[in-house]
Amino acid sequence: MIYYETLSKDELKNEIEALENRYNAFKGQKLKLDMTRGKPCSDQLDICMDMLDIPAKDLRRSADGTDCLNYGVLDGLPEAKALFAEMLEVDANEIIIGGNSSLNLMYDTVARAMSLGITGEIPWSKQEKVKFICPSPGYDRHFAICELFGIEMITVDMRQDGPDMDTVEKLVAGDEAIKGIWCVPKYSNPDGITYSDEVVDRFAALRPKAKDFRIFWDNAYCVHHLSDKPDMLKNILTACKKAGNENMVYMFASTSKISFPGAGVAVMASSTGNISSIKKSLTIQTIGHDKINQLRHVKYFRNLEGITLHMKKHAGILKPKFDMVLEILEEELGGKGIASWNKPNGGYFISLNTLDNCAKEVAKLAQEAGVALTKAGATYPYGKDPLDKNIRIAPTMPPVEELKKAIEIFAICIQLVSAKKIMEIA
Amino acid sequence: MIYYETLSKDELKNEIEALENRYNAFKGQKLKLDMTRGKPCSDQLDICMDMLDIPAKDLRRSADGTDCLNYGVLDGLPEAKALFAEMLEVDANEIIIGGNSSLNLMYDTVARAMSLGITGEIPWSKQEKVKFICPSPGYDRHFAICELFGIEMITVDMRQDGPDMDTVEKLVAGDEAIKGIWCVPKYSNPDGITYSDEVVDRFAALRPKAKDFRIFWDNAYCVHHLSDKPDMLKNILTACKKAGNENMVYMFASTSKISFPGAGVAVMASSTGNISSIKKSLTIQTIGHDKINQLRHVKYFRNLEGITLHMKKHAGILKPKFDMVLEILEEELGGKGIASWNKPNGGYFISLNTLDNCAKEVAKLAQEAGVALTKAGATYPYGKDPLDKNIRIAPTMPPVEELKKAIEIFAICIQLVSAKKIMEIA
Repeated sequence: MIYYETLSKDELKNEIEALENRYNAFKGQKLKLDMTRGKPCSDQLDICMDMLDIPAKDLRRSADGTDCLNYGVLDGLPEAKALFAEMLEVDANEIIIGGNSSLNLMYDTVARAMSLGITGEIPWSKQEKVKFICPSPGYDRHFAICELFGIEMITVDMRQDGPDMDTVEKLVAGDEAIKGIWCVPKYSNPDGITYSDEVVDRFAALRPKAKDFRIFWDNAYCVHHLSDKPDMLKNILTACKKAGNENMVYMFASTSKISFPGAGVAVMASSTGNISSIKKSLTIQTIGHDKINQLRHVKYFRNLEGITLHMKKHAGILKPKFDMVLEILEEELGGKGIASWNKPNGGYFISLNTLDNCAKEVAKLAQEAGVALTKAGATYPYGKDPLDKNIRIAPTMPPVEELKKAIEIFAICIQLVSAKKIMEIA
Repeated sequence: MIYYETLSKDELKNEIEALENRYNAFKGQKLKLDMTRGKPCSDQLDICMDMLDIPAKDLRRSADGTDCLNYGVLDGLPEAKALFAEMLEVDANEIIIGGNSSLNLMYDTVARAMSLGITGEIPWSKQEKVKFICPSPGYDRHFAICELFGIEMITVDMRQDGPDMDTVEKLVAGDEAIKGIWCVPKYSNPDGITYSDEVVDRFAALRPKAKDFRIFWDNAYCVHHLSDKPDMLKNILTACKKAGNENMVYMFASTSKISFPGAGVAVMASSTGNISSIKKSLTIQTIGHDKINQLRHVKYFRNLEGITLHMKKHAGILKPKFDMVLEILEEELGGKGIASWNKPNGGYFISLNTLDNCAKEVAKLAQEAGVALTKAGATYPYGKDPLDKNIRIAPTMPPVEELKKAIEIFAICIQLVSAKKIMEIA
């Protein structure tokens, strides 16, 4: 183990030369490896293919006799609501089933608040300023929604147990322009951490100055465990009810990474007050989402146990990939004082921090050797990582052999950039 | 044939008595007949059921090798674009494929203009006033979108060849607040008329004062013929291009009434300039719509000819219903000078006009005898038919025997209300 900062200039030079040789050897292979997005791999999609072979005759009628081929049923089939209510630990009447994308549900929820306002408050677009709190590193697509609608983003640090709640509490209590906060509370994107019970309780007990403040609780990875001892997340809606804040949270989830990213079922959950308020404009927006696909999912998974068993198959495919990434990172970077990273129990990412001001250079170098990473900075609002240090590793998509090469190249790039940086400073 | 207004008071009394007897006989049957919405009937859905039995293995990959189960392909599979481009007579690069609802695409298009504006203009929500022209009678769900977003609706009369274009031209040229017009140009809802070539050309040649004025061209019934000699609709996008107005129109359509209302594929078409502008925010809204369902539709229909053949089966089911309605209307109401109605070559509705100030009363009376009609007034902005005379008949959903009863009751109600009205005046 070498602690880079203790090395002499000559030792550093030698190290850099050795790394450059390894780097160039990979570069010569003209690789094309993609780790940009949290996409399931082909094997993960294979295991659900038989859902698409459920015969038409079994998809025609829902349990209550509704013709699923025809119009209607704005907020989802009762059995689909029941399935997702179980998954999200809420009541079926606290559920709205959407189309195939929870991102679209989140976008719609923000868009609706912009144009129509939330439960009688002035529409956000007519308020002087609207701000969202963005615990970071976080999910770039959340931030993109804010940016599109001109919502000012306030970065708050992520800790090992969730967002920095001291700051969150102060911000929402003091500023009426703060209307929301983005959360990925379980196996967070990208850190892979799960909010502690205390953090959830502090969320539920928030006393926002704005009546139309909402927590956007994107529970994207609620059943996406990689370990037999999965993280437990306290139920935010229940906690909000206890704290007298039942209208403060919108929960989102989908089967995008359970069944199919391209043809799954998305869902949102909230208090019955919020749900009925949303349905008033939802009924103008659509007559109803795809009920056949809802029924397909219900027939296939049946209940939460069915989903849980299915997710074990996903874990069986993903865990070796995550393990391998962690092994290589440890082997290449361990003890060198140049990078730190999380070891998540679930989700889709490994978040790595380099030395300050190295992330962009690492991503650039990796790109030049044929390894596409999520854009450095993407995990922060406006794509600007203040310390230029966070990189999101998405190990799910590439086949194991490609992933191995990609991570090795990535680790070489980190060492190379770090050694040069230390050399400059020395 | 009796012309009601020529009858003496005594003759009218006798007529009313006879009608009341017939009405009460039906009322005694405690019927429950629904003609409220333009929903396909069960038989129409049956003929497409086998689409849902296409094996999973045939749905995995698009022609270009894309894994349709995974994320991506924002604007639709190339083969789906090609199919709908053929149907809408546009280029494939003028197409965006949506989810299962063209209503949702229209809603999104208005919502986007409200929040984000159209190609660089000030968002509608930040403009002092936004108005839409609503040719009426028209489609209540179009009007509902305007009402939700606080868009002021200006009623313009429908003629036998389309909207009153003299008025439309004057309005859009003179008022910058007018941002849109709703059109169902083929087999219009509810009149069943198709815009003439001249009307389409006048649309294309509009010189709106507002740069962000758009024609919302809801071609919902483009292939929904009931006759072997279908109406022909001139292509608005081509006409707009010729008139130097290529960005002025958004076209919408779906397979809701081709395949499945609950699980079809929606589509919009516009100039490549508009399409690329829409995609800039669409990419924030979703990663992509359901590609499996797109592929299912492409494999099933293959091309426009496939759709056309399929639509002949629909016509085979619907034409007898339309014929029967028209026959009963003629038999009961013909020559009495109390109602007029259209004989459409396609679409989903028969539009009927009573004497002034009779429609609500007719609907109420029908309701009391167990026949639910589309709410009287619904075909006008704000649900207010200025002359209270238009009623939309939706004959597709009920089985023939039920439809027969429903229309007979309906026709009795018209006669009864008209006779009483004439009696009052006399």
